[in-house]
This record gives sequence, C-alpha cells and structure tokens, in this order.
Amino acid sequence: MCQLLGMNCNTPTDITFSFSGFVQRGGRTDRHADGWGIAFFEGRGVRLFIDSGAACKSPVAELIRHYPIKSRNVISHIRKATVGEVSLENNHPFVRELWGRYWVFAHNGDLKHYAPPLRGRFCPVGGTDSERAFCWLMQELAEAYADMPSMEELTRTLTELTPQAARFGTFNFLLSNGQALWAHASTSLCYIVRQHPFTRARLVDEDLSVNFAEHTTPADRVAVVATTPLTSDEHWTPFQPGELKMFQDGAPFVAKTPQKEI
Amino acid sequence: MCQLLGMNCNTPTDITFSFSGFVQRGGRTDRHADGWGIAFFEGRGVRLFIDSGAACKSPVAELIRHYPIKSRNVISHIRKATVGEVSLENNHPFVRELWGRYWVFAHNGDLKHYAPPLRGRFCPVGGTDSERAFCWLMQELAEAYADMPSMEELTRTLTELTPQAARFGTFNFLLSNGQALWAHASTSLCYIVRQHPFTRARLVDEDLSVNFAEHTTPADRVAVVATTPLTSDEHWTPFQPGELKMFQDGAPFVAKTPQKEI
Repeated sequence: MCQLLGMNCNTPTDITFSFSGFVQRGGRTDRHADGWGIAFFEGRGVRLFIDSGAACKSPVAELIRHYPIKSRNVISHIRKATVGEVSLENNHPFVRELWGRYWVFAHNGDLKHYAPPLRGRFCPVGGTDSERAFCWLMQELAEAYADMPSMEELTRTLTELTPQAARFGTFNFLLSNGQALWAHASTSLCYIVRQHPFTRARLVDEDLSVNFAEHTTPADRVAVVATTPLTSDEHWTPFQPGELKMFQDGAPFVAKTPQKEI
Repeated sequence: MCQLLGMNCNTPTDITFSFSGFVQRGGRTDRHADGWGIAFFEGRGVRLFIDSGAACKSPVAELIRHYPIKSRNVISHIRKATVGEVSLENNHPFVRELWGRYWVFAHNGDLKHYAPPLRGRFCPVGGTDSERAFCWLMQELAEAYADMPSMEELTRTLTELTPQAARFGTFNFLLSNGQALWAHASTSLCYIVRQHPFTRARLVDEDLSVNFAEHTTPADRVAVVATTPLTSDEHWTPFQPGELKMFQDGAPFVAKTPQKEI
C-alpha cells in the first residue's frame, strides 16, 4: 500500500505544510521507501518531480519543502512497491496528454490479475497495475469524447468506469487535468476543506503546526485529500467505499438534482 | 532563439559539468530568461524538471547542479520566448508517450505559419510552434509503425519527416526515447564525443574546468550536443544545415552502406 496526497484550491496555494508531514510517511513515520513523486499544475502546465528511495531523505523533496510552488491542483504519492519493480518508470504520479491537457494520476492499492484491453493509444511505460489502470481510463475517456466535455460529464463517465477496474482489487486514486481533482476510494481516503474562518492545525507526522489565518485571505478555499488524516486537530471526512468525488475550486462538487424530463 | 543541450552516453553519466556552463546562458552569459527545462532518462523512466524565469537564478537548476543524476540520455533547453507566451506549459522539453516509451523533445528556432494537420492523438498543451512540431512528429511515427521499429529505421523515417517541418523556418531540435538521441540542425548545433584518453576541459560560460580522466573509466563514451560549444579547449564538430544525426552509446551512428539488392 502506498500513500496519496491531493490538493485542489480556488486560488494558487503552496502545499509545503501538508507535504512536510506527508514526506515523513516515506520512510520515517511509515514504511514507504520505494520512491515518491509530486505533480503541480500551473495553468495548463505540469511540474512533475519524481525520485527514487525514501521521500524523507530525498534532496528533491527537500527542495519542494522549501520552494513554495503555488498550484491549484497537486497530486503526490509515496510508493511501497507491491506490483512492478522499484524503478523510476514505476513511480507515481503518471502523466499523459489528452485533448490538449495533461492528466495526472496516482494510485494506492493492488489490482490483481488486471489486464484491461489497451488498444495502443495509451501504453504503460512501466510494469505497474496502476499505470495500466490509468492508460485504460485515458483510453476510455478518449473513445467516449472527441473533445474535453464538462467536468460534470467527465465525473459521470468516471463514475461508470471506475468500478470496472475497482472490482480487481483496491483502487484508491487521485486524478487531475488541472481544472478539477477526482478522488476515488476503495478502502482508505479522507478529505478536509479549509476555508474562512481559518484555524490552526498540527501535523500528525511531524512536530509542526501552522495558523492558516496568517497565510490566507477570507476568499481562499482549499481541499486536501489524503490516505489518512495529515493533521490531528481538524475534522477529516472519510470517503465511503466505492465513492468518487470531484473537487473544484477547493470544495467537493455536489451534483444538481437532475430535472425531470417531460 | 533558444539554447539546446543534449547528452548521450554508453554508461549512465552525470551532466553537472556541462549543465553548470549551460545554465549561465539562461540570463547571465546570454539573454534567455523565459524558462528552462531538463529531462533525464533513467531506464524507461524520465525525470523532467522545468522552471520559469532565468535558469541561472532557479532553485531547481541549483538542485540539478549539485544532485548528480546519472543518465544515458539527457535533453535540456533554455527558452527565449518568440512564439507562445511565457508560461510553464510552453517550457521545453516536452514529453509524450508512444509505443510504451516516453519521448522527449526540445527545439530551437521558429517555424513560421506552421499548422501541421494534427489528427487528435497528440495535441499541443501550450501555444508554441515547437510543441506542434513535436506532436506532428509523434503522430507521423505512430501512423508509420504499430510498434517500436529499430533505431536505424526510425532514423530513416525522421530523416524523411524533418524537412517537411524545417521548410517553415529554423528547426534545430533534440529528440530522445531513452534508447537514442536524435539531433537535427537547420542553423546552429555542434557536438563532441568524449572518450579514452580523456583530457581536461574548460567551460566557455563559467570559470570552471574538469579533468575527465579523473571521473571516467577507459570504457566510457559520452556525446554532448549543444547550440554552440560549451568548452573552449576541445574540438566541437558543427552540424551541416539540414543534417540529422542519431547518437547511440555515446557516438554518432554511421549507417552501413546498403547492400545492392539482386
């Protein structure tokens, strides 16, 4: 099992506080030392940092902790290898391009004997079940729509597709195209929305606390998704098994009740 | 115009020496301060670092200078924006996946009024002529071969494709799939092969010299390609206009004379 961290905001925000706690799970407070990665959207562009070894000892992670990259959508992953050898091409997040947008994906869990039909447009580079699932999702979206549909429509399609992969095992994942963040839980995922009035929070994994009120404006809103809560003094909402949520502008999207058609 | 740097080796090698000189061209010894990037292949995996602003002041470049990432294929680029605004998605190198391999591309020059027919499999995310040319090359390769052909066959196909884009302007580029490095010059590109007996070299752009004999074994071989020579005391070979070279195992590939068919 691996560790996931995602962030979706209504204004570009740096993730240094949450990331500081999260990287401790890569070898210090938890045993996930088989590589790690983090992807930041900046507009349509993506910065992807991946590194081998333990995140808590990585010079690249050290850079991220002190270089406040501001982003509206971030996905990070710490790997405990189960399927696929320990090598750079097996590090999450994975990135592909579809409809002129980058898509970023990270997965926690195992999909056993998972060999979806891949028709060649999106091929795994490494040997993980996770990258196979990502390529399959991208393929199915590419075949369903000629161009980027609305985020709401994408959410409906992802809600239909996800169980087809999830029945092979554990499929906790984070996915983003820079406009929204999708999070799906089979077993373990929780989230928090931080907004005005902002309070103080203390990390679980490191002796560090922050008063968000000192670093925010009243209009800011940030959703953070993680495998398990990153802070000890805030209320994190657990995902239900099989639940897929889309986050936009720092909050979970709530579908409007469909109007009855006449 | 931008600056290109490529490296192809027969054994994983770090590029810190060449990169130290190269980054000075990003704002100090030359005026290219609109972002930069570097991609390292590690096996089938790729580490891509991109950053906005001047390379010579970038904390990410500072990390690369001191974190000796060993790679057999590296492509780096410093941007002077001409087409496409200054934003992260317009930073080179660009990465796409084809046939289960990552492909990395960086371009120096302008392709004027260049709008190749893109059929949707590879779409530009940003607004540069460079990314359009890369997507077009990937599309044409994908349509020419169902699976990865030999490097020699790819070289022949790239030799046919390249002039079709080059006629729109200046098309100096570097391309790699982690197995080989292709370099094409319209105007300005040169290369050097460093091999036994290794000598001392001094950077043009910074007061730094290195004795390669102290850092190598006699079996090592490294080809370095750059827009203009990086060192003052070595012999760099200029590319001819319109020349495309494939580098493998640290040396330019020399095609065998085809056998006469009977």
